[in-house]
Amino acid sequence: MDRGAIAEWNVAPGANAGMLTTDSGALIGVPYTPEARYELEARPSATTPEELLAAAYASCFTMTLAERLAQAGFSAQWLRAEARVLLVRPSGHWEIPAIRLHCSAIVPGIADDEFLAIAHAARIHSPITRALRAAVTLTVSLERAPGRARQAPFQTA
Amino acid sequence: MDRGAIAEWNVAPGANAGMLTTDSGALIGVPYTPEARYELEARPSATTPEELLAAAYASCFTMTLAERLAQAGFSAQWLRAEARVLLVRPSGHWEIPAIRLHCSAIVPGIADDEFLAIAHAARIHSPITRALRAAVTLTVSLERAPGRARQAPFQTA
Repeated sequence: MDRGAIAEWNVAPGANAGMLTTDSGALIGVPYTPEARYELEARPSATTPEELLAAAYASCFTMTLAERLAQAGFSAQWLRAEARVLLVRPSGHWEIPAIRLHCSAIVPGIADDEFLAIAHAARIHSPITRALRAAVTLTVSLERAPGRARQAPFQTA
Repeated sequence: MDRGAIAEWNVAPGANAGMLTTDSGALIGVPYTPEARYELEARPSATTPEELLAAAYASCFTMTLAERLAQAGFSAQWLRAEARVLLVRPSGHWEIPAIRLHCSAIVPGIADDEFLAIAHAARIHSPITRALRAAVTLTVSLERAPGRARQAPFQTA
């Protein structure tokens, strides 16, 4: 069985955009554009393949990590992952060399090294990681209080 | 530079869901759940990592194909791609063995084999394909009239 999405390119002259719809209806006719994709210095004005890959990755990772923490007997009080998909053009072709993932969590009673081990296992075994060739770099931040935890780990465009 | 997304897991007892937000705002607090992900026979009630990967793939492919058709001097009158991400558990772990992609198009003046060649080149060179380890199977359907073209190639759940 599968989950899917439909992309329809707008072929009107000068349009240079498409529209995306997913099975669940989370996206319905949502625009995606080369401008949002390749003008990386600007805030994206439409969705892009890379932010959707980041969303796929971050959702997969947190789901897998929550399962594995529960299996190990821990209950997270807070669990958040941000995925950043790099897009570069080193030699005329755009490519995705790497994905950076930062996970912040509050997990009562867990030791730092134990959390790191479970988070790395979640990264390695998550279905999206296993479908990817791009390298994924994981950093974690085990927090003690919600205040600190809500800092953003990455500068965003 | 990069594009990204944030996933926050809902740690409330019994919640078993998370919420996704992307840079562009295409997703803002959109729920994702293990139920929608793993109960594959049912219509998904929330988004899933796999349909987001399908959306990333289909949008990347159509954008790359539109560029390559234009470079070859063709203007599509209609261009649509559906990506289906398979999720299976052959041995206790969920994994993504393959992605199926079906592209339908109306491109005046193009020969079938020429379209097929350009579509396969777009598949191979699209940044998302190159970031993936999972096999991608591409089928194409070059249509002559919009009526036939709008048939769905895959049965959806």
